[in-house]
Amino acid sequence: MAPGPAKQFDEGEVLTRAAEAFRVHGYRGTSIATLVDAMGIGRQSIYQTFGDKRGLFLRVIHHYAARAMVNVRAVLEAPGSPLGNLRRLLGLWELQHRQRGGHGCLLGVSCADFDLDDPEIAASLRHHLAQTEAALRRAIAAAQEVGEIRRDVDARVLARTINGTSQGMALFGRIARDGSMARDITTGLLHLIDAGATSKTHSQRRKSR
Amino acid sequence: MAPGPAKQFDEGEVLTRAAEAFRVHGYRGTSIATLVDAMGIGRQSIYQTFGDKRGLFLRVIHHYAARAMVNVRAVLEAPGSPLGNLRRLLGLWELQHRQRGGHGCLLGVSCADFDLDDPEIAASLRHHLAQTEAALRRAIAAAQEVGEIRRDVDARVLARTINGTSQGMALFGRIARDGSMARDITTGLLHLIDAGATSKTHSQRRKSR
Repeated sequence: MAPGPAKQFDEGEVLTRAAEAFRVHGYRGTSIATLVDAMGIGRQSIYQTFGDKRGLFLRVIHHYAARAMVNVRAVLEAPGSPLGNLRRLLGLWELQHRQRGGHGCLLGVSCADFDLDDPEIAASLRHHLAQTEAALRRAIAAAQEVGEIRRDVDARVLARTINGTSQGMALFGRIARDGSMARDITTGLLHLIDAGATSKTHSQRRKSR
Repeated sequence: MAPGPAKQFDEGEVLTRAAEAFRVHGYRGTSIATLVDAMGIGRQSIYQTFGDKRGLFLRVIHHYAARAMVNVRAVLEAPGSPLGNLRRLLGLWELQHRQRGGHGCLLGVSCADFDLDDPEIAASLRHHLAQTEAALRRAIAAAQEVGEIRRDVDARVLARTINGTSQGMALFGRIARDGSMARDITTGLLHLIDAGATSKTHSQRRKSR
């Protein structure tokens, strides 16, 4: 069989653009016409490369989550204090979701568009959300290892609460008129982390203010 | 002008059924045909009574939120310990969102379907979410008044964190295979509340186990 014409586009780039369209408009609100505009490639290229809209969407959430995970890990696995890294990640998420006109996180927005009736997409969303949870758990465990978070803190509970709370904050950010909601929710999360911090960490933090 | 025929349906009842359809399928995923099925009234009755789909939706979220608020206030304003009431509400929310096949909260799901480009719906969602926040703040203030929560706890921060976290938990519940996510996130929230509880409350709670 003769080889087809070479693809004229960067797959990662068009998936990133498609992710933005799905994040803003939701899965159901994103038409193929919207995707053609957003991705900058023809309708036929979309179908040939990614199959139907649902197939494209599965590729998009994988691509989006993998990129997000690179950023999350870069922050959480940086040298130095694991607790400091955790705080820094929450600060970055706050900054992201306190922007007026924000659109939240594609994974959270997509949870509102799907349920267990689509087991494949539900499993994909669970998988990618669990990756963030696992990265948070590793950071919490590392903070426990160096004595910054108490050993009796349940890392899974704390990681899931941070993950869930961040998704709630991201969702509220879509309709918020100002950044005070994201700031307050991040402050609440930092209080929860503080509650599990060792007294040594507390006093160090107070001194550094 | 001769009076039209009397309405043959209970408005509150059909709005409740419409709310369920919108909660399960989202605004965009709910067609007029789906609404006719769900509401059990004719297409023409829908248009005559509620205008278009968007007009119906605005009525639906108002009706849904008012009903939810009655339940929230009944729990939070019950006689006895305000902190106990707050804990009881979180327990009820956990129970609701740990059911397999749950569909979250209509207000949260709708945040994923809208943004500031529809200022009227965004304002309505903000308004109803703020009502829950206000009820939580009143309960926290009451708990501070009777010495169950420390005076230095910022009631707005705590109320918004509880509200945001609950929406994240509700969202995850749509795709969860079991109740462990809702249980863990509720446990995390209870830890946050514990962190602000007075030492007197802490020791009372421990004794009562």
